[in-house]
Amino acid sequence: MNNHEDELKRLREALQNRLDQLLPAGEQQDLVFTAMREGTLSAGKRVRPLLLILAARDLGCAVEQPGLLDLACAVEMVHAASLMLDDIPCMDNALLRRGRPTIHSQYGENVAILAAVALLSRAFGVVVEAQSLPPACKTQAVAELSLAVGSQGLVQGQYLDLSEGSRARSSEAILLANELKTSRLFDASLQMAAIVAGSSLQTRQRLRCFAQDLGQAFQLMDDLSDGLSNTGKDANQDSGKSTLVALLGAEAVHQKLREHLRSADEHIASACHRGLSTRHFMHAWFDKQMAQFGKSSTQPGC
Amino acid sequence: MNNHEDELKRLREALQNRLDQLLPAGEQQDLVFTAMREGTLSAGKRVRPLLLILAARDLGCAVEQPGLLDLACAVEMVHAASLMLDDIPCMDNALLRRGRPTIHSQYGENVAILAAVALLSRAFGVVVEAQSLPPACKTQAVAELSLAVGSQGLVQGQYLDLSEGSRARSSEAILLANELKTSRLFDASLQMAAIVAGSSLQTRQRLRCFAQDLGQAFQLMDDLSDGLSNTGKDANQDSGKSTLVALLGAEAVHQKLREHLRSADEHIASACHRGLSTRHFMHAWFDKQMAQFGKSSTQPGC
Repeated sequence: MNNHEDELKRLREALQNRLDQLLPAGEQQDLVFTAMREGTLSAGKRVRPLLLILAARDLGCAVEQPGLLDLACAVEMVHAASLMLDDIPCMDNALLRRGRPTIHSQYGENVAILAAVALLSRAFGVVVEAQSLPPACKTQAVAELSLAVGSQGLVQGQYLDLSEGSRARSSEAILLANELKTSRLFDASLQMAAIVAGSSLQTRQRLRCFAQDLGQAFQLMDDLSDGLSNTGKDANQDSGKSTLVALLGAEAVHQKLREHLRSADEHIASACHRGLSTRHFMHAWFDKQMAQFGKSSTQPGC
Repeated sequence: MNNHEDELKRLREALQNRLDQLLPAGEQQDLVFTAMREGTLSAGKRVRPLLLILAARDLGCAVEQPGLLDLACAVEMVHAASLMLDDIPCMDNALLRRGRPTIHSQYGENVAILAAVALLSRAFGVVVEAQSLPPACKTQAVAELSLAVGSQGLVQGQYLDLSEGSRARSSEAILLANELKTSRLFDASLQMAAIVAGSSLQTRQRLRCFAQDLGQAFQLMDDLSDGLSNTGKDANQDSGKSTLVALLGAEAVHQKLREHLRSADEHIASACHRGLSTRHFMHAWFDKQMAQFGKSSTQPGC
């Protein structure tokens, strides 16, 4: 295992331990507590909290800053809540997530909804209780998180997918839904890193552009993976949905994905002069995903 | 119309205007925006935001403080979101609310859930953007709101009602569910008033006791009103539910209600030396409700 992987393993363990502390077990018969913990603590990739911590380091923060870990956990709670809601019967009606039965299929739809609402609410509480951060940082972080969830973020992305996803859409409409569903929470994670690091507005704008490209790349990779059987999610869940893969074909989407990654790389390089952790993380992650298709993240074709 | 009613009318109009500003209409075809606005702007009693503003005044704040109005709107958004979620088919499956069809029966269950999540998230954003308040006040207010919503507040109250409400419960179990469903958000509203007013911990503790009693009184009044036809909600929605009315009978519940009001009155009087607005509001509200039953809020039976 190289240094980078070693470091990610250490950070993932720290995240897991802190999430475990921040989500107390409650009484055993309380299904809302159980669902909140299972939805958050079950093995996830932790992409958003890792981005937050790595970007903060690249921007000059001490990575051991305890407040950073708390903000990262808050972002992961929001992500976990959004997955629980996306999976319920009146949304995507999914049975599998992260290789396990979805929360509602284990505990019921009402418990899944209540657990998601409690997680979201807890996330805002975790931000304002984050250790060793000044109140003005925390209020900015809450504002970023609020924007990423609401009617200009995850909620709106899910609504667009539900209301338009089953009929033909323009690629612009698909890109907008992808941005709302994925780029906005990436952006909130990166903005929180910049807030803690005290970065300039120019740097924050560059991170915003990075989040845009990275979110699109993630969503395209997710769409490309939909037909694969080892994703831990229901296979062919996108069947009949209007995605860029359905519109343009897999090869054109691979090309677009590489363009987004190249652009993302330029933005993160200009935002972070001091470190390379975020770039390294992004490349390693996409290389691993691309390998499933026998492709590389930087070179065309195979 | 006396001075008190005049003042309440003015405050309700100010709340309505500010809520209207804080919830922009978006595009007409966007049902999430429409549902967010309808769920919040349709005629409600505005008890929680009025409590916040009146208590802040009683504690020495200038009632025109613009930040107060924003905090009050945030509390009302949380309340509106909780009503939308309580009404959906997998929760209470209600058709009427505030005299109109419930949000999910107009726009679908998924839109109702997304609108509730967006409203909750917006509420936290509104708190941190509240005008003329220092960041440390805002972080405390977010913490109060987060506790009131999550697994120690509204969510847990709704879960207890769903999981235990249809079988016989002890009066202690019913009181706990009532506290979580109603007292906690009353308490958060009052604590926000105290935060803005810079009140002592002792005052905050007294307000907490006031919220406990007031929440129980509200819930008991709600249970007593369930059989009435002019509540704007589905009549007999509690039929088969384990409420104190079902357990002890209406007369004993009227007696308990008066005891809670007497205790609430003592707590608010000891918390607020400077003003009587909150007490006045509480008495007027319950007198009006009690009149439906030919009773008074302070005198036993008639």
